[in-house]
Amino acid sequence: MKLVEFSPFFNRKLEEFLDELDISKPFKDVVIYTPMAGGKRLRAYLVWELSRHTGFGEENALKAGIAVELFHSGSLIHDDLPAIDNDTIRRGIPSSHIRFGECKAILAGDFLMLFPGRVLSSLDLESIYIHLLLELWQETTLKVVEGEFDDVFPKSESREQMDKIHSAKTGALFGFCFAAPFIRESKEKIDEMYKLGVRFGRLFQIMDDIKDVISTESELGKTPGKDGKLNKLTILSFESLEEAQIGVEESFQSILGEIDSFSDLKKEMRDIYNLIARR
Amino acid sequence: MKLVEFSPFFNRKLEEFLDELDISKPFKDVVIYTPMAGGKRLRAYLVWELSRHTGFGEENALKAGIAVELFHSGSLIHDDLPAIDNDTIRRGIPSSHIRFGECKAILAGDFLMLFPGRVLSSLDLESIYIHLLLELWQETTLKVVEGEFDDVFPKSESREQMDKIHSAKTGALFGFCFAAPFIRESKEKIDEMYKLGVRFGRLFQIMDDIKDVISTESELGKTPGKDGKLNKLTILSFESLEEAQIGVEESFQSILGEIDSFSDLKKEMRDIYNLIARR
Repeated sequence: MKLVEFSPFFNRKLEEFLDELDISKPFKDVVIYTPMAGGKRLRAYLVWELSRHTGFGEENALKAGIAVELFHSGSLIHDDLPAIDNDTIRRGIPSSHIRFGECKAILAGDFLMLFPGRVLSSLDLESIYIHLLLELWQETTLKVVEGEFDDVFPKSESREQMDKIHSAKTGALFGFCFAAPFIRESKEKIDEMYKLGVRFGRLFQIMDDIKDVISTESELGKTPGKDGKLNKLTILSFESLEEAQIGVEESFQSILGEIDSFSDLKKEMRDIYNLIARR
Repeated sequence: MKLVEFSPFFNRKLEEFLDELDISKPFKDVVIYTPMAGGKRLRAYLVWELSRHTGFGEENALKAGIAVELFHSGSLIHDDLPAIDNDTIRRGIPSSHIRFGECKAILAGDFLMLFPGRVLSSLDLESIYIHLLLELWQETTLKVVEGEFDDVFPKSESREQMDKIHSAKTGALFGFCFAAPFIRESKEKIDEMYKLGVRFGRLFQIMDDIKDVISTESELGKTPGKDGKLNKLTILSFESLEEAQIGVEESFQSILGEIDSFSDLKKEMRDIYNLIARR
């Protein structure tokens, strides 16, 4: 399945899933607002596609994808708050705190960051694999929060620091997406997939930062040019736009080579690349 | 062990535990500030004492207590934010956002709400019980967040609504404390203990609300009289102070009767009661 086909398929599944969520009505409206606002669903797609090559199963892959997308939405809600990145637009519509106020947005973010653990607990796997998967999840989510902190308050302005921030803030969640489908395989395989996912996540972040300077608001679905205003460490703190774009292509080819060794995802990855690069 | 002996013992264990926490320095300072600021450690104490009557084990009890206290600190950090309860003092010192600013406080709250899952995953239990314990934990933490939302935006001003809010916002975490030590027993026993804990939590909340109107700031460690200002639903929305105090004593005797049937905690519970009532 291509990503452009997967997104609407996933969105229907996510909507069904959120419909059944048993929380009180006014809070539920806030909780589902950001996850249902769209997004590429790239993270869920990667879980889905990589699961074709393991015995993880479609239901498990969908649920794990839902978990990842919900957490991602929760962390975006907090990142967008005035005290953090102060973004008023997200996925082309007003950010959660603009639509509902800060109080509701903070609590919806809390809920969306905690809820995925419950989703992952409900996967159809033996307890020993649920335990492993949740450990991987816990490491991942803590890295995302720590990475967000370092992104706002970097300890230095070095390229190493930028790589570390990107690995945590963005890479960890992709690491989880790459590794989760392999949870019943060896620890070495899980680690290898996690690291490959982190590398892909770093690449994704660099592409995102490049788009931040060359795109319009409607292309981006959020306010462009914010990184520069917030003095964030991005690839463009170290390289020219052209150098960065060449570097991205090289990194992508290298990741593609590794993926090629265990799956037939090459075509899908090329689609993903074009889609991310274009968006 | 009495609660007054347990608190310093637990605080040393918590400090050792947090010392080993592998996160970057400036963030760590924010993360440990609120958990290390004290508090009665009543929740951790209940896990500890109830564990004496099961095979849960001291190390597991301590770690589960640490998990509960860290989550509690994280949720307090968010509750204290200007957009929510706007409390500038907590445990007798400036609230996290006053000390570090809102951005750092929000992210520390996120970390402290997510981290306990990892602590619970590390308990010395078979995976099947870790899985059960994490499911119980996930339900609990989601209830706390939902309860906090309903506390700020109650759907009605009825006593039922108040009970529902208290059961979620405060009761759920006590439910977990009561049930966790029994995680290897039958589902019925776990449920029974959880419900008893929720009842205890409701009682605790009512005592807390009573103290909010009769105490000074130095007794309370936070700003007194806030509930009235924020128009929160408390027992004093429905009963006179004297009626409420009599009701608290009756509820306590009823809970004590049930605890008496399976443990020798009566004396400890009486101590707890006096300590909460007095504080």
